Amino acid sequence: MEPIRLGMVGGGQGAFIGGVHRIAARLDGAFSLVAGALSSDPVRAQASATELGIARSYADFRQMAQREARRADGIEAVAIVTPNHMHAGPAIEFLKRGIHVICDKPLTATMAEAKKLAKAAESANALFILTHNYTGYPLIRQARAMVARGDLGAIRLVQVEYVQDWLTQEVRHKQAEWRTDPARSGLGGALGDIGTHAYNLAAFVAGVEPEQLAADTSSFVPGRALDDNAHVMLRYAGGAKGMLWASQVAPGHENGLRLRIYGDKGGLDWGQENPNQLWFTPFGEPKRLLTRNAAGAGPEAQRVSRIPGGHPEGYLEAFATIYTEAARAIWAHQAGLPAPEGVIYPTLADGLKGMRFVEACVQSARRNSGWVTL
Amino acid sequence: MEPIRLGMVGGGQGAFIGGVHRIAARLDGAFSLVAGALSSDPVRAQASATELGIARSYADFRQMAQREARRADGIEAVAIVTPNHMHAGPAIEFLKRGIHVICDKPLTATMAEAKKLAKAAESANALFILTHNYTGYPLIRQARAMVARGDLGAIRLVQVEYVQDWLTQEVRHKQAEWRTDPARSGLGGALGDIGTHAYNLAAFVAGVEPEQLAADTSSFVPGRALDDNAHVMLRYAGGAKGMLWASQVAPGHENGLRLRIYGDKGGLDWGQENPNQLWFTPFGEPKRLLTRNAAGAGPEAQRVSRIPGGHPEGYLEAFATIYTEAARAIWAHQAGLPAPEGVIYPTLADGLKGMRFVEACVQSARRNSGWVTL
Amino acid sequence: MEPIRLGMVGGGQGAFIGGVHRIAARLDGAFSLVAGALSSDPVRAQASATELGIARSYADFRQMAQREARRADGIEAVAIVTPNHMHAGPAIEFLKRGIHVICDKPLTATMAEAKKLAKAAESANALFILTHNYTGYPLIRQARAMVARGDLGAIRLVQVEYVQDWLTQEVRHKQAEWRTDPARSGLGGALGDIGTHAYNLAAFVAGVEPEQLAADTSSFVPGRALDDNAHVMLRYAGGAKGMLWASQVAPGHENGLRLRIYGDKGGLDWGQENPNQLWFTPFGEPKRLLTRNAAGAGPEAQRVSRIPGGHPEGYLEAFATIYTEAARAIWAHQAGLPAPEGVIYPTLADGLKGMRFVEACVQSARRNSGWVTL
Amino acid sequence: MEPIRLGMVGGGQGAFIGGVHRIAARLDGAFSLVAGALSSDPVRAQASATELGIARSYADFRQMAQREARRADGIEAVAIVTPNHMHAGPAIEFLKRGIHVICDKPLTATMAEAKKLAKAAESANALFILTHNYTGYPLIRQARAMVARGDLGAIRLVQVEYVQDWLTQEVRHKQAEWRTDPARSGLGGALGDIGTHAYNLAAFVAGVEPEQLAADTSSFVPGRALDDNAHVMLRYAGGAKGMLWASQVAPGHENGLRLRIYGDKGGLDWGQENPNQLWFTPFGEPKRLLTRNAAGAGPEAQRVSRIPGGHPEGYLEAFATIYTEAARAIWAHQAGLPAPEGVIYPTLADGLKGMRFVEACVQSARRNSGWVTL
Repeated sequence: MEPIRLGMVGGGQGAFIGGVHRIAARLDGAFSLVAGALSSDPVRAQASATELGIARSYADFRQMAQREARRADGIEAVAIVTPNHMHAGPAIEFLKRGIHVICDKPLTATMAEAKKLAKAAESANALFILTHNYTGYPLIRQARAMVARGDLGAIRLVQVEYVQDWLTQEVRHKQAEWRTDPARSGLGGALGDIGTHAYNLAAFVAGVEPEQLAADTSSFVPGRALDDNAHVMLRYAGGAKGMLWASQVAPGHENGLRLRIYGDKGGLDWGQENPNQLWFTPFGEPKRLLTRNAAGAGPEAQRVSRIPGGHPEGYLEAFATIYTEAARAIWAHQAGLPAPEGVIYPTLADGLKGMRFVEACVQSARRNSGWVTL
Repeated sequence: MEPIRLGMVGGGQGAFIGGVHRIAARLDGAFSLVAGALSSDPVRAQASATELGIARSYADFRQMAQREARRADGIEAVAIVTPNHMHAGPAIEFLKRGIHVICDKPLTATMAEAKKLAKAAESANALFILTHNYTGYPLIRQARAMVARGDLGAIRLVQVEYVQDWLTQEVRHKQAEWRTDPARSGLGGALGDIGTHAYNLAAFVAGVEPEQLAADTSSFVPGRALDDNAHVMLRYAGGAKGMLWASQVAPGHENGLRLRIYGDKGGLDWGQENPNQLWFTPFGEPKRLLTRNAAGAGPEAQRVSRIPGGHPEGYLEAFATIYTEAARAIWAHQAGLPAPEGVIYPTLADGLKGMRFVEACVQSARRNSGWVTL
Repeated sequence: MEPIRLGMVGGGQGAFIGGVHRIAARLDGAFSLVAGALSSDPVRAQASATELGIARSYADFRQMAQREARRADGIEAVAIVTPNHMHAGPAIEFLKRGIHVICDKPLTATMAEAKKLAKAAESANALFILTHNYTGYPLIRQARAMVARGDLGAIRLVQVEYVQDWLTQEVRHKQAEWRTDPARSGLGGALGDIGTHAYNLAAFVAGVEPEQLAADTSSFVPGRALDDNAHVMLRYAGGAKGMLWASQVAPGHENGLRLRIYGDKGGLDWGQENPNQLWFTPFGEPKRLLTRNAAGAGPEAQRVSRIPGGHPEGYLEAFATIYTEAARAIWAHQAGLPAPEGVIYPTLADGLKGMRFVEACVQSARRNSGWVTL
Repeated sequence: MEPIRLGMVGGGQGAFIGGVHRIAARLDGAFSLVAGALSSDPVRAQASATELGIARSYADFRQMAQREARRADGIEAVAIVTPNHMHAGPAIEFLKRGIHVICDKPLTATMAEAKKLAKAAESANALFILTHNYTGYPLIRQARAMVARGDLGAIRLVQVEYVQDWLTQEVRHKQAEWRTDPARSGLGGALGDIGTHAYNLAAFVAGVEPEQLAADTSSFVPGRALDDNAHVMLRYAGGAKGMLWASQVAPGHENGLRLRIYGDKGGLDWGQENPNQLWFTPFGEPKRLLTRNAAGAGPEAQRVSRIPGGHPEGYLEAFATIYTEAARAIWAHQAGLPAPEGVIYPTLADGLKGMRFVEACVQSARRNSGWVTL
């Protein structure tokens, strides 16, 4: 297949996630980045494009959408890597022109925007892919398949945490600023930035969403407008229970996303910082250490692995897997076919669930941790 | 000092914790076990005593209390290692005769018994020691000292879990039976058996008790009368927060007691299954692995270490430390002195807090996880 | 800078390392793969090129060298990813036409070829880069810098091992076949395939090569013509000592490259399967866990990191770093400048040392493990 | 059974290993320490005995042997915990009086003494037990049983290391002094002190001794008379190979005894600093983490476990197991019976092998690492 022509909104000089998206798009050769509106500041946008060798630079996303849509060799997909409040606008603009959208999470800053975007996506002739990148890890795919086929028995417990320490004290750099600003981030601080990842990952692997949650949120750093820590209890249909902890103020944790799931026949344990290992304990037997693309890895993990076990794949590869899954779906869409069997990527529906998760946590916290139905 | 003459109530053939207490009492040579009422079944009591080479065997604890109190060489202390509902009765009996009591946790089966026992202890000329044995680990002593001297800054987060898997499915042996029977265990299942340990350990290290909790408890195994899983959120005066998870149905966990504490200057992480290591991260610096009685270990850890770092000490040594601390306090008491500086052991007050913790969890769970003040 | 136009020799369908080179070349956007002689079988060569979307496919490397050298838009560099006995021929062909060579290790199958290649490289107006890819790991760069600036004091001990299990029993697939065939691999089996990596990595970090070695090699699998296990003792000028263990028959090891270095002031420990962590112990202090691009990481590690600590980078990123370092050197060479400061890549001299290492091990083994001077 | 009356030679104030022996003897209640010649300095001997509450104190071991042998309630066994050069003399003295000897390792300081002792032991009506304490770890018993029953297939590789850092720089305290003094330690420094443990443990688990070794030894610290680092290659009958590394100058290692064994069907990995875990990989399957007295633990491990899995047992428990195994053998001997089935303890023969190991390493090192037959 030919590489898909890609544009990018956001991701100019000084950004973090834009660079990640560019590597992810390039890693498997499935995309070719040809256009960008890399910054709301036109000078910086142009400078960034030049630095990155991007052929066509635009002063803003609307201009890019309009002009690219008219070109025969215009972009087929766009990556939106702006702060949360700048997701919905560009996404709608490209979707309505039939340009596929690959959008950073959380979906939007507000539920109102999210609903508008959902409506636009429904009527568009284009795909919407949300980069819940942790679902791209091979052993997460494996864990999901194991749960689905009953290796753990009936699921009883879902314990997930996403813990960082970089906001332990007041920080003023660009990455920190917008993430702690309600105008740009929305209702959630840690909840939106990393809690949504934890929530999504747990549901992705468990194969089920909770029905209710009760949350206690905090803003530990004086003057911080959004939560920097959230404790959440979860209840599932059928009686399963869970806990979710999201924190950006826990010294000693860099990017500690960890998921543990237990059923009446076994348990799983996976951590993002060492993603090539998955612990599996069938009840009553010794723990087994499953490794990516090696002994014990099933076809779901192998399908999205690039190299043999023992050669660690990491964050960028998992992110690239989301891009490459998106490419497979886009190529199929262009050919008028459904996405090939086995292809999985996070959708707008996942984004809406994440938005509802944040909203429900905030509601519960305001009601002194009363249970809120999702 | 001469070894303290010790009696034992419970701990006959088939018991688990009785054997632990006997090794713990003997390990440092501070106690000499000379009398026992090892079983409520007199035949088994005698057989157990003979097997263990215990000089004086009694048919029941009352008889033992009366007769030993009258002997010049009678027991000076007694270990009570019966199921929960059989703690208060013997304890009161010995305390009122001035015989020091070393009692297994939780304090009692019911709060009413606990209060009676507390009253008896207050007026007794004897010490009451509760075997919250995990507080005997050297690196737990170290962690406590580090928190106390401000190494972590102001405490914000206390995350504790005690997770096992042995009750994942229905079990019918002796150890399981009384632990899942309200008549013998009281209000709490996992809450009482291991949740109280987690609660106690967190408070021991953090140096502070929570003010409020909200709990969601479950009995996952059909027909189980007591909780086998509890999710608890904690709130402290001053705004710190915490989570406590106690479970006996999480496959892959043998005895997974783990404590993590975070302040605005650093974080600590310790797990009971590898107790000779303590992670300490001063915010913004690399993680440090402190090891028992080696580089980085402070005087509080060294004081209760027997051998150099790298030579692992374990569960029995930590348990023995509780006994040996008790012995130091008893020797001092016999000499009319206060306990020597640095000596620490869990007290009746700790036991009452544990009882209140269980009770509050049950109350909160009944109120649909509403916050309950402790 | 414009991406460097790259060709590839070998790496057609069924190959492993070719795909790795392609991702590595692409990951940072520094190379653009435009030509290939992907297989000695012309049909497979063409099919592979088509599958990969490579514009210009050649039936053999000589043809590719000749024709590309004549084109204005011909390749500027070539990646040689064939079995060992097919390194020297193509490399010389391209070097003499001023096309930079990026060549898989070990350098060649025989010392004679290696010397011929070295001579060709000396007189060529082109760079030769050997893909000892493990030197691309950020924390390996950090370790090297730490040793160089004396953090460990005077080096005393270098313990390195590279252990796999995939040849534990007889295997007949393509990857195994040529690696166990003296005609294609040369003198060394495990020694050449992974021993050279271990040797190179140890020298890279320690900053010094051993003077002497004594080796005991084995071929455990019946009928195997080359070694599948090698035990080697090392001696350095000044009295430092080392051990090297290379094995492909140790069940439980996927790709276990581990390096430990000790001086009179401290020790380092790094393992390839978890490459984002580096243990550093200053003598008499607690162990410190340095993580890639996070607390404790120095400029040498940060320079070759793409994403923040806690987001694991892996094998492909480290490999890509070798490519990107090569690109930096090539761009400078094209501009008539020396390689920019800080740029490091393995050279032909490293390749010669690896060849000598294998040869010396074989000599020592034949002399019943007598010491051989390097 | 009645506790065995025990005496002790050495182990007075300031000693390390004496205290370990006392706890080990006491832990399972199998011994009662009633007499001692705790120091060659009579004043210190008496003071130490008083402090420890030992009933009968002697000025020297000869006096103790003579007088205790005459008493009806005299000691039945003696623990010898002196420096190496003071093992043979006391051991012979007690053996010839029919008093069982439990002796610290290595056997003696010189091979001549070792042979004299062996001769005395042969003709004595008493047992000789050598405290190679690491063979008391439950999972080491399990590993040995697994190898014996073929879980690993035919053994090919034995990789053992015992690494410490406490002699990295010059040290002058009591423990260091005699260990670095040829007059008191004998031929070996690290070789004798910890190399013999590594050698013994490897043979214990592998079930076979090497036939040949080649060694390179060093004394890194200026002025040190004995080796502080030894690199050793091993060859077994039948073609298996091994490496042994003993070091006391490797910063970051406290007491790093680690054993890895590989056969053509599987591999094992165990480390002393986390002794409750044993990795087992059947070739081609995921790694399994076997834990002491829990899932996967066989009867050989359970037999010498005191508490359930997840409750860590450590160094003192393993040491106590040697004592308790000795007690079982002594009780049987007293009853005129062979040692009960399953009882295992290190013997004089093991001690002689350890002496020969040290001697052979020194010979090989003197011959520039030539192979020496054991």
